[in-house]
Amino acid sequence: MKDYTLDSFFEGHLKVYQHKNGYRFGIDAFILANFIYLKKRETVLELGSGCGIISLILAYKFPQIKKIIGIEIQPSLVSLAKKNVTLNKRENLVEIIQADIKELKEKFPHANFDVVISNPPYYSLKSGRLNPDTEKAIARHEVKSSLLDIVKTTQFMLKQKGRFYFIYPAFRYGYLFVALHSYNLEPKRLRFVHPYINKEANFVLVEAMKGGKEQIKVEFPLIIYEKQGKYSLEVENYYKT
Amino acid sequence: MKDYTLDSFFEGHLKVYQHKNGYRFGIDAFILANFIYLKKRETVLELGSGCGIISLILAYKFPQIKKIIGIEIQPSLVSLAKKNVTLNKRENLVEIIQADIKELKEKFPHANFDVVISNPPYYSLKSGRLNPDTEKAIARHEVKSSLLDIVKTTQFMLKQKGRFYFIYPAFRYGYLFVALHSYNLEPKRLRFVHPYINKEANFVLVEAMKGGKEQIKVEFPLIIYEKQGKYSLEVENYYKT
Repeated sequence: MKDYTLDSFFEGHLKVYQHKNGYRFGIDAFILANFIYLKKRETVLELGSGCGIISLILAYKFPQIKKIIGIEIQPSLVSLAKKNVTLNKRENLVEIIQADIKELKEKFPHANFDVVISNPPYYSLKSGRLNPDTEKAIARHEVKSSLLDIVKTTQFMLKQKGRFYFIYPAFRYGYLFVALHSYNLEPKRLRFVHPYINKEANFVLVEAMKGGKEQIKVEFPLIIYEKQGKYSLEVENYYKT
Repeated sequence: MKDYTLDSFFEGHLKVYQHKNGYRFGIDAFILANFIYLKKRETVLELGSGCGIISLILAYKFPQIKKIIGIEIQPSLVSLAKKNVTLNKRENLVEIIQADIKELKEKFPHANFDVVISNPPYYSLKSGRLNPDTEKAIARHEVKSSLLDIVKTTQFMLKQKGRFYFIYPAFRYGYLFVALHSYNLEPKRLRFVHPYINKEANFVLVEAMKGGKEQIKVEFPLIIYEKQGKYSLEVENYYKT
């Protein structure tokens, strides 16, 4: 059995178990969650939900949505996420399902979700060393699914004009843009994430629309650190309320 | 005959005549010029050189290049640019040619330039009111040439691994990305331009490479104003040395 840690956010309103030594979420989960807006009665699909952190933040911030379904391929993370849903009493809003996103077409009807979200594996199998811990490797590298798999599934699952939110390394922006464009998902809103105001972007936040027009809003930059060891005011606020 | 104004930059090292009532360059010319780097002995082609401002800034900043050729379709701007080249004694480095960029293939050999630069018309003919002044309309709207014409010509003119620099409205980033990608010009370096630190980007600076790999560097954001009426330190320095 794996060891756990228990972390608390939003003044104790959100509590999350994580594996002590497996994959642990980073600040990118909070950054992505804060980029997303959901409307009343919307249905949401999270592809690769891990321990459930993003779905739980969204259920906390947008309690008037209809449902979030989190898909996760790794059984150890599925049971952890279910534990977290129960711990936070969100069984009414968040459901976790063990499945391979490449096989979702057989489980769900076509064009049934208003919103798809994902914090996908960032790196191709060709780049960098694979983490020896399987749970970490699958979360970070395209072992089980690539961005293209996620884009294809998103295209199938989204209603026309539905929204797709994700975060991705800025240096792969060319690859992601072509992938989205090929599947009729047009980027509508971008936000680049810079560690410091005078450093290049390491991530990009993307809101794409199924069947959207080619018109992009590039929001003001998200700066993570004001100075070394001190988060910017915006990021500090992510962990509050 | 048109009336002129004479402006002076870089502590008097650069002087530029402009038509008082025709098309007048804006801060985007300086922003683009400062995004470009040129190496010794490189040959440069500017598509749509207007009064010659960008070519002249580059000739001042990079005196060791081999040659800049500026192409301009409007005879009134061609004669103005020639006047500016003479005024600044840059006849050895800058040559201005009256031509339609759609017909350049007949005038120049294939793959002959190291660098192509352009401050193209920003708006499609469908968007916004056309300026009643022809000189302004041609510079701002795609009356005589579209980004696609410029991309096609650039693809023909550039050597393999040659660089293409331009500035474009951020909201048309989807359109420009697809145009570049279709003609084997890969964005390598991007910089988004925001009027203020907390406002969305209005422009994007692009360095693309002919035959480049899909790997993008998104540089730290360029902020124009520190506060209303006061340029940021970076922009203030553009007008100095």
